[in-house]
Amino acid sequence: MAKKKTTKRRANRAWGGRFGLTTDKDALAFTASIGFDIRLYPYDIRVSTAHARMLAAVGIISAAERNKIVSGLRSVGRELDAGDFVPDKNDEDIHMAIERRLVEKIGRAGAKLHAGRSRNDQVATDVRLFLKDAGAAIDEAIARLQTTLAAVARKHGEALMPGYTHMQRAQPVLLGHHLLAYHDMLSRDRGRLADCLARADTLVLGAGALAGTTLPIDPKLVAAELGFARVCANSMDGVASRDFVAEVLAMIAVLFSNLSRLAGEVTLWATSEFGFVHLDDRFSTGSSMMPQKRNPDIAELVRGKSGRVYGNLMALLTTLKGLPLAYNSDLQEDKEALFDSVDTAVASLDALTAMVGTLSFDKERMAAAASDSLLLATDLAEALVARGLPFRKAHEITGRLVAHCVDRGLELGEAGAAALARISPELDPELLASLDTVRSVDARKSAGGTARALLRRRLRRLTK
Amino acid sequence: MAKKKTTKRRANRAWGGRFGLTTDKDALAFTASIGFDIRLYPYDIRVSTAHARMLAAVGIISAAERNKIVSGLRSVGRELDAGDFVPDKNDEDIHMAIERRLVEKIGRAGAKLHAGRSRNDQVATDVRLFLKDAGAAIDEAIARLQTTLAAVARKHGEALMPGYTHMQRAQPVLLGHHLLAYHDMLSRDRGRLADCLARADTLVLGAGALAGTTLPIDPKLVAAELGFARVCANSMDGVASRDFVAEVLAMIAVLFSNLSRLAGEVTLWATSEFGFVHLDDRFSTGSSMMPQKRNPDIAELVRGKSGRVYGNLMALLTTLKGLPLAYNSDLQEDKEALFDSVDTAVASLDALTAMVGTLSFDKERMAAAASDSLLLATDLAEALVARGLPFRKAHEITGRLVAHCVDRGLELGEAGAAALARISPELDPELLASLDTVRSVDARKSAGGTARALLRRRLRRLTK
Amino acid sequence: MAKKKTTKRRANRAWGGRFGLTTDKDALAFTASIGFDIRLYPYDIRVSTAHARMLAAVGIISAAERNKIVSGLRSVGRELDAGDFVPDKNDEDIHMAIERRLVEKIGRAGAKLHAGRSRNDQVATDVRLFLKDAGAAIDEAIARLQTTLAAVARKHGEALMPGYTHMQRAQPVLLGHHLLAYHDMLSRDRGRLADCLARADTLVLGAGALAGTTLPIDPKLVAAELGFARVCANSMDGVASRDFVAEVLAMIAVLFSNLSRLAGEVTLWATSEFGFVHLDDRFSTGSSMMPQKRNPDIAELVRGKSGRVYGNLMALLTTLKGLPLAYNSDLQEDKEALFDSVDTAVASLDALTAMVGTLSFDKERMAAAASDSLLLATDLAEALVARGLPFRKAHEITGRLVAHCVDRGLELGEAGAAALARISPELDPELLASLDTVRSVDARKSAGGTARALLRRRLRRLTK
Amino acid sequence: MAKKKTTKRRANRAWGGRFGLTTDKDALAFTASIGFDIRLYPYDIRVSTAHARMLAAVGIISAAERNKIVSGLRSVGRELDAGDFVPDKNDEDIHMAIERRLVEKIGRAGAKLHAGRSRNDQVATDVRLFLKDAGAAIDEAIARLQTTLAAVARKHGEALMPGYTHMQRAQPVLLGHHLLAYHDMLSRDRGRLADCLARADTLVLGAGALAGTTLPIDPKLVAAELGFARVCANSMDGVASRDFVAEVLAMIAVLFSNLSRLAGEVTLWATSEFGFVHLDDRFSTGSSMMPQKRNPDIAELVRGKSGRVYGNLMALLTTLKGLPLAYNSDLQEDKEALFDSVDTAVASLDALTAMVGTLSFDKERMAAAASDSLLLATDLAEALVARGLPFRKAHEITGRLVAHCVDRGLELGEAGAAALARISPELDPELLASLDTVRSVDARKSAGGTARALLRRRLRRLTK
Repeated sequence: MAKKKTTKRRANRAWGGRFGLTTDKDALAFTASIGFDIRLYPYDIRVSTAHARMLAAVGIISAAERNKIVSGLRSVGRELDAGDFVPDKNDEDIHMAIERRLVEKIGRAGAKLHAGRSRNDQVATDVRLFLKDAGAAIDEAIARLQTTLAAVARKHGEALMPGYTHMQRAQPVLLGHHLLAYHDMLSRDRGRLADCLARADTLVLGAGALAGTTLPIDPKLVAAELGFARVCANSMDGVASRDFVAEVLAMIAVLFSNLSRLAGEVTLWATSEFGFVHLDDRFSTGSSMMPQKRNPDIAELVRGKSGRVYGNLMALLTTLKGLPLAYNSDLQEDKEALFDSVDTAVASLDALTAMVGTLSFDKERMAAAASDSLLLATDLAEALVARGLPFRKAHEITGRLVAHCVDRGLELGEAGAAALARISPELDPELLASLDTVRSVDARKSAGGTARALLRRRLRRLTK
Repeated sequence: MAKKKTTKRRANRAWGGRFGLTTDKDALAFTASIGFDIRLYPYDIRVSTAHARMLAAVGIISAAERNKIVSGLRSVGRELDAGDFVPDKNDEDIHMAIERRLVEKIGRAGAKLHAGRSRNDQVATDVRLFLKDAGAAIDEAIARLQTTLAAVARKHGEALMPGYTHMQRAQPVLLGHHLLAYHDMLSRDRGRLADCLARADTLVLGAGALAGTTLPIDPKLVAAELGFARVCANSMDGVASRDFVAEVLAMIAVLFSNLSRLAGEVTLWATSEFGFVHLDDRFSTGSSMMPQKRNPDIAELVRGKSGRVYGNLMALLTTLKGLPLAYNSDLQEDKEALFDSVDTAVASLDALTAMVGTLSFDKERMAAAASDSLLLATDLAEALVARGLPFRKAHEITGRLVAHCVDRGLELGEAGAAALARISPELDPELLASLDTVRSVDARKSAGGTARALLRRRLRRLTK
Repeated sequence: MAKKKTTKRRANRAWGGRFGLTTDKDALAFTASIGFDIRLYPYDIRVSTAHARMLAAVGIISAAERNKIVSGLRSVGRELDAGDFVPDKNDEDIHMAIERRLVEKIGRAGAKLHAGRSRNDQVATDVRLFLKDAGAAIDEAIARLQTTLAAVARKHGEALMPGYTHMQRAQPVLLGHHLLAYHDMLSRDRGRLADCLARADTLVLGAGALAGTTLPIDPKLVAAELGFARVCANSMDGVASRDFVAEVLAMIAVLFSNLSRLAGEVTLWATSEFGFVHLDDRFSTGSSMMPQKRNPDIAELVRGKSGRVYGNLMALLTTLKGLPLAYNSDLQEDKEALFDSVDTAVASLDALTAMVGTLSFDKERMAAAASDSLLLATDLAEALVARGLPFRKAHEITGRLVAHCVDRGLELGEAGAAALARISPELDPELLASLDTVRSVDARKSAGGTARALLRRRLRRLTK
Repeated sequence: MAKKKTTKRRANRAWGGRFGLTTDKDALAFTASIGFDIRLYPYDIRVSTAHARMLAAVGIISAAERNKIVSGLRSVGRELDAGDFVPDKNDEDIHMAIERRLVEKIGRAGAKLHAGRSRNDQVATDVRLFLKDAGAAIDEAIARLQTTLAAVARKHGEALMPGYTHMQRAQPVLLGHHLLAYHDMLSRDRGRLADCLARADTLVLGAGALAGTTLPIDPKLVAAELGFARVCANSMDGVASRDFVAEVLAMIAVLFSNLSRLAGEVTLWATSEFGFVHLDDRFSTGSSMMPQKRNPDIAELVRGKSGRVYGNLMALLTTLKGLPLAYNSDLQEDKEALFDSVDTAVASLDALTAMVGTLSFDKERMAAAASDSLLLATDLAEALVARGLPFRKAHEITGRLVAHCVDRGLELGEAGAAALARISPELDPELLASLDTVRSVDARKSAGGTARALLRRRLRRLTK
């Protein structure tokens, strides 16, 4: 018994009736989308199943026809799952492939399925249904990275490290504070995602080719079965719009602007010069030429893949630019960009999560870097402010002390009473002696600061 | 009495204390942002005013100092409003310019203003406050375009026209149905905008340079005065993140993907070949060489400006890519992109609104184009389905009839009984005779369809 | 005898020596490039063959070892051609897969192949070699489209049509003149391509991982065998730079800015409203719902695919941004973008060529559109200039005449002597009578104009 | 005597003749380009001067009229130089402003200037002429950076430093080798620029609005006077194409992909952790809050500005997408992107040049980083290959030795004979003793390697 159903056939096109000549073979290959839209098959089957049930409910097909269609579709789905049915190049797209196979299996009833719909509304519905799953997968992957960041912050978060601005050491911070900055960025990414998904949660089946249908369909039934929150209010908008895809691609692009920063920091921290982290063997790779290398490939790739997802966004925005209503074939270009960005997001998030979760931190080295007394210059300036000096004055005095110390290779506390007095009468050894890295961190306790107490409170809340 | 306050001065930099040499003049020009961030001055003054009040409330400055600062800032603001104070090239940025002028006016108290904050959190706060106004302006401009679209739909909406797919006439639709498709797209744009704004509605003042401050500030007081919904939970996130700007730029890019489509359609409809609309003289332009031209410049420019706003989005996403925490000067590049996209959005929306609102429609020409009987082919196929034929069969029969008529230059209704019978026994003259453009439109009455009844109901709802 | 060589093996990595744990399976999948770089196998085999010959020539391996390697590589290549050797997921990349298979076949000699090189220089060399073929393919595809445009211009080129600015009819032109505008754009695209290819024509093998090698290799021998014009002058540049790929992606993006315009015009001309062209059945598609449709899918897809190639360019530019020297894994992201843009270019060019070559032109309709006398307004103004009037004056007079005629629905020639006199004494019936569409076209005979004589001369030159 | 010529006037439009109503004020503001195209005035004056001379040469205007126009244009140019003539909002664009002012000055002869041309070909010519200067400015600025890189390489180039791949120390290289990698990238950038400029070196004046002109103009005369290499062969291409601008924007984008890498490395090297360079006070900036900071703003801004120039490229590509021939107002959007990318390029190059030229290098620290014996692992593997071992075997043995040393915190040379023997009989103490950083560098002497001899030879050649 032959398993594969890809025997030679004429091109399976939805629209053969009118044309004299058959479509040019190369033209067919150029316009066919089966190479990538096959991925939509589970959604197409669910959509067609719901459509068939609705057609029966409103009396366009009989209950018997519905049953045949529904069980036929289930069977086509199983064949596709098992690889027993493989659409071929003659199938223009996954929708035609499934309908063709359905008709092969159940005959005339199958030919009734397409009543009251068009591929234009069908494909848009499939993509929106795909997006529900894809969105959930991205959300869960972001949540896993957040959980890992919080876990690392819980375990190692009170380690001291320099906070940087302009890549220059600025003020001491807690590792946990630094990591939770990414946690917060990712929360916004999840918020953006949720907003996108809510807006995309509209059934467009029923829009027909562009204007609806004259058949007495009931989109609300379909929406209920497929779990859409609402029914599209304008059929032309329904088939012509891909802003819901552009919005998801933008959300993923912004996500990667954040992920590329985290990935960039891991590559930086993993340099010999920083030496803050050590990558687990399982999540680093070697060199074909240099035996000593341990390369942070995952972080590099995540950083590099920002290009890919930015590119996908630009691709769709460009495609949409200036298109007249309603459907145009240009819109076929939405799918590969969407699939690629979704896959890249989930894979990159998971790779990053695994890698971040297995980092070892060299806390001594981090603490040593944070202990540079120059990082307490702001604390000194603020201590002068607390004594009543205007900030600008305090800033200037501290600046002079810093210059003095840097020129002589001294720590701030080593300046000596005479030098302090020379720099400013406001400076005195006790003041300098009070500067301390841990105290500095803990003193930053107003909302959003890096104090240990705030970190602990934050982590407790995240646990809930 | 000299009015202009731009006398020759040394460069006004926030950080002179440490440096031996002065900054290179060209380097200063390259790094200065005063050329564009001057636009933030009203926000900077509001932020500093709120900051000063908070400093007094928590005891860092006295009530007298607060009063001096607050009235000093008000006075600087008035000078800036009137053009009496013009920051110059020696002012690194608007923040330093305002503080410099404040100190010139009120002396020592002015030097106390910067306590407990940094330019890093200050500029991020200014931008977020600017965004509240900018967001409202965009929202109102979108709303005006929607109102105009609805008004045109109310006035001319029942005019018949061809609906197109692939730029080929497909099925008859109502002009109002077509226009309200844009109304719905724009509603989603407003939804996206509202989501962005809600997410950006966070006070980050208090984040300091990156780690908070050791001074006992109270960000909640500032948030309340400036109208922010919440206080930033992580100082490093607060100064390092610009995803809130990227998100707005993405929202505007998606908006323009929609606007460019509407603009593109107007240019199409205004061609001699389509001839559906006639542009008002006030909103079209002529040619320097060809006296007969009336060019739809506004529509062309809106379509063309999609490039600009896409580019601004790409610019910021690129800038953010791979940046380590926390603040880096690269982030200075966020402002020009934001200002340009906001201005482009408001100006383009308003220009489009004025132009759309003054279009005259050539309803006869539109109706004639819609009257092509081929546009009723789907109705015929669906009528056959209603008689029980499988859709695929109905589609094929209709296709054969269409081919027959096209070959002979006939309207569908002119095929003749013999020909009908030859094509299919399912076809008969009465069926063909029942086809009618208005009936076709009205028959599309399931959710989202183009029926007149649905358009009227929709417009009634929009009025409320 | 088992044909497929994909039996279960441990991961085939270039760098196993140092690591304690094996790489995480998901991490391996995330970092592996075998899924897409398999396409480079013919180039990898050529590069390795040339490398082996050089190694023998300089005495690093023996002649016998070279022979084994060369014939082994040939055999691996044949296996890959035939699908008998299928690299699997354990092969990190195509380079490791081929070397692994080579060692399986020829043993110890195979392990000598990688001397004096690294994957960093190897992969860059493979890509540059691929580019030679890809560049030739694109150039030939552009040339085919040019040949077709010239052939159509030769056949139908003297048909009159309106030239448009702002999508408004402006002046009559020849179809051939319009089509040859694209011919000239495409000539520049070929010039850009040639420039890219010349710049990329550098051998980088010998750059090693980043600094060259201590072994006495001779890159010039390899360059000669592989046909590279020169040898890279700086090893770090050699492995770190991908500007040669970015440049090709930019060239393809600009090409599509041109192709999308041609494609857009075909969709426009194929509308019922313009009706200038009729698409051949073989190069248009139908609708699943509307039996009467004939859609210009190919043109729409080419227009839409501009997004994809713009996105690929943005992707690589983003990836390159800010990367430190020398090689980083981010650069792995160059290949999919390159492959996709190359494939899209060749396929789109060929599809467009086939479609353009089979267009039928409705010359009557084009001529009718061109015969609008308003299109001769510029000729009238220029005739007044020829009589000595200042152009601005002539323009204004003509403008008044146009307004007069448009208001009354008259052709320019129908204004009547009295009206002419009223508008301006410079106008007279003979002047108006001299206006003629064909004469207008032929009068534009200065360099670059639309005169028939110029078109003929141009086509004669293209033939040579 | 009033200097400013901006008295209240009616809108100065090229096309007033036909229109009944005046253009809406907001619409005029929206469509006007005077705000940015004023920058083209010197080019517009040169173009008009050459045009007038040609008009006289072919007899369209008299010699006396030509003289009046030429001296009038010179005078308008001087007014613009001096700020005495300030175009205002009623001037649609710089072309109309100059013509208006010319007519105010010389009367009727001025109204003859626009004969035989249109703003469509005029503006394209202005931009191409601007590009000649802009291109030269960019080329010189790149050359200055190259000269500075070579000078630094000459002065400090033999300093040892680690070469990195994946940001991990890989092999020792010379600082000069590293810097000259950028020199070579920049040479390619100059090559790209020269190619662009050569392709853009075409006179398009004479293309008229789109189809040429009926007047007997002689474009070759104009080309000769303005220094264009050739005359445009197709008028529609001439006014409709902006690929020559897109190509320059792409060239600048690729340039910034290179500059952002150099800038990124400077910020990296300037970290406390790397500590390889110290920025001159004149080219670093401080912090408003942290007195100890010295921030590499210039490098950060150059890195950040890659976004801006990528965005400009994307903007124009988007704008061009799908535009029908010939001129459309969308093309007006080309100028701001071009000006911004040109200015950003020159300013960034000059800032980077100044900053790079004043870097101090901490050679001890660089040498210490390079002295890590693990960086010689490749040398060891290659030494084993030189002894006849297959590279893979040599790589594996070296990998085991590296693991041994890393685990015990040993340098490679400290492993001890017993351990060496245990790891592999191929290893022996003499072999290890032969490893040396300087020797390693000098041994990489095949083409493109980092050997001192190669660096010296390279620098000698650059001097010529």
